[in-house]
Amino acid sequence: MKKKQVEDIYAFGADLGGNNLRWGLVNQKGDILMHEKVASKGIKSKDKLLDHIFNTVRDGVIKCQNAGYKIKGVGIGIPGLIVKDKGYVLKSPNFAELNSIYFQRLLEERVKLPVIIENDVNAWAWGEYAFGAAKGFWNFMVMTLGTGVGGGVVVDKKLIDGRDGTAGEVGHITIYPDGIKCNCGNTGCLEKYASATGIVDNLKQHINDEGAIELVRIIGKDIGAVTSIDIYNQAKKGNAFAIKLFKGAGVALGIAIAGLVNLLNLEAIIIGGGVSAAWDIIVPELRKEMMKRAFSLPARRCQIMKNDLGDNGGILGMAKMVFDM
Amino acid sequence: MKKKQVEDIYAFGADLGGNNLRWGLVNQKGDILMHEKVASKGIKSKDKLLDHIFNTVRDGVIKCQNAGYKIKGVGIGIPGLIVKDKGYVLKSPNFAELNSIYFQRLLEERVKLPVIIENDVNAWAWGEYAFGAAKGFWNFMVMTLGTGVGGGVVVDKKLIDGRDGTAGEVGHITIYPDGIKCNCGNTGCLEKYASATGIVDNLKQHINDEGAIELVRIIGKDIGAVTSIDIYNQAKKGNAFAIKLFKGAGVALGIAIAGLVNLLNLEAIIIGGGVSAAWDIIVPELRKEMMKRAFSLPARRCQIMKNDLGDNGGILGMAKMVFDM
Repeated sequence: MKKKQVEDIYAFGADLGGNNLRWGLVNQKGDILMHEKVASKGIKSKDKLLDHIFNTVRDGVIKCQNAGYKIKGVGIGIPGLIVKDKGYVLKSPNFAELNSIYFQRLLEERVKLPVIIENDVNAWAWGEYAFGAAKGFWNFMVMTLGTGVGGGVVVDKKLIDGRDGTAGEVGHITIYPDGIKCNCGNTGCLEKYASATGIVDNLKQHINDEGAIELVRIIGKDIGAVTSIDIYNQAKKGNAFAIKLFKGAGVALGIAIAGLVNLLNLEAIIIGGGVSAAWDIIVPELRKEMMKRAFSLPARRCQIMKNDLGDNGGILGMAKMVFDM
Repeated sequence: MKKKQVEDIYAFGADLGGNNLRWGLVNQKGDILMHEKVASKGIKSKDKLLDHIFNTVRDGVIKCQNAGYKIKGVGIGIPGLIVKDKGYVLKSPNFAELNSIYFQRLLEERVKLPVIIENDVNAWAWGEYAFGAAKGFWNFMVMTLGTGVGGGVVVDKKLIDGRDGTAGEVGHITIYPDGIKCNCGNTGCLEKYASATGIVDNLKQHINDEGAIELVRIIGKDIGAVTSIDIYNQAKKGNAFAIKLFKGAGVALGIAIAGLVNLLNLEAIIIGGGVSAAWDIIVPELRKEMMKRAFSLPARRCQIMKNDLGDNGGILGMAKMVFDM
């Protein structure tokens, strides 16, 4: 009877992204049995945004319960600095409305279930560890190359939250001390070279170069409207300047990862996010830079891998954290 | 009776430094009851060096046993990359004679006791955690500013050894990607700005600057003979260029620490080593750079502290590891 009871408990995992809020009902094997995706973008009042998030989660939970699933708790991944033990959102770059909110407590009141909150990329890392590309690794990092660069570090089979729960911000390691100004206040952050916005910013930095002028002309948009996807499409067609921008992302990532390899002797760096579509341009540069800069043994040890779980990484990671509660 | 029995067990901790091999007989409270220091420098044959180290440890152990102490085991901290689970010295910059040696097994054969080996700065970090400045912290790093820059990271009350045991090499994080060439093969390593050799190298890099010429003239030595202590002595007397070199060390440390604070959300950075004598010049620059570059909450959280244990850090850390076996 005991076995059946264990299998009969499910976790509700959710992932708040800049565009969508996704949730999934997850069993202990990591299968997603029910799921939903609703828009999260463009709600600018704090109360309305919170209501939207909390009601979406509550309605999802009720829907799953009505389908007969017993839910142990709710986990939700949130972009930004999370003070995990207090269930507090310190600062979310995409959702300033959530800054300084005791999110966990408020959501618990709404769903009447235990709630865990965590940084979204930390959640993803835990998902890859439990159910994805990082299975079997004890020491690794998940890096997301999206609008920004996020990270989640697992050391000795434990997710590194740090003293306040804000750990993992690999995107804000300094690569070029006098480099491009970052929104975080620093200059030369990894994020300014290896994210979608970073790729575009680097084009803007070089806008008087012949190659950059030609690239913008081919894309056929005003420079202010050019996206990293436009640049990637030209890179695929062989445009030298577009390729150079993605190679620059690889170099910056390689500099950061070499340091992490020396410091933490990781087994793998697992990469996801939209910019990683340019894998074949970025990763050879990344590897070359890492091998050049890091000690040979830990550099050879560290695998550079694609993520497994994609958009479901956050949901599955938060679900696993609920099961771990 | 049980209490007495526990107190009656002792650990033999040793620390192999570039100049001296020190050992101490340590009780569980971290008191050093017997100790000795013998020279370790200038022995260039591999067999002779190993014999010297192993015999010093064996003779020390016998001396302690003859004094009536029951010894649980021997721990020895070694500078360099240590593959801990194999008891293997991969690469020691100061003792190339120890490279690729199964040190632990060889020493066990000599002393007839269980042996643990560990990187010397990792050992120091564990010593500060058990008996020194890091007592009560769960997440911190010890950094030594000596001939090189070493590090030992503790996260969630565990020393980070990494997959192979080579973790902690904070001195070889890249600060200036196109900076000074390092012995490790990389360019712009922290060590090239914040170690004793780094301070001197930076003087040499600027040897045509008016301030540098004046500084070397005041020191009164050939540039090849100038040491970081010479430079420090002039910094204390107010020489602007000497002060600038130590401030540069502070800036480089601040850049590195800002990244670590964002990545690991540490509670403290505990600093030791000869170069840290210039604390009053280095640390204000370090703090300024860290506050400027890191996220505010984790930066405010992270204390920059002097170490407690000094030369005994390695001995006490290795002793604690023996007790933890």
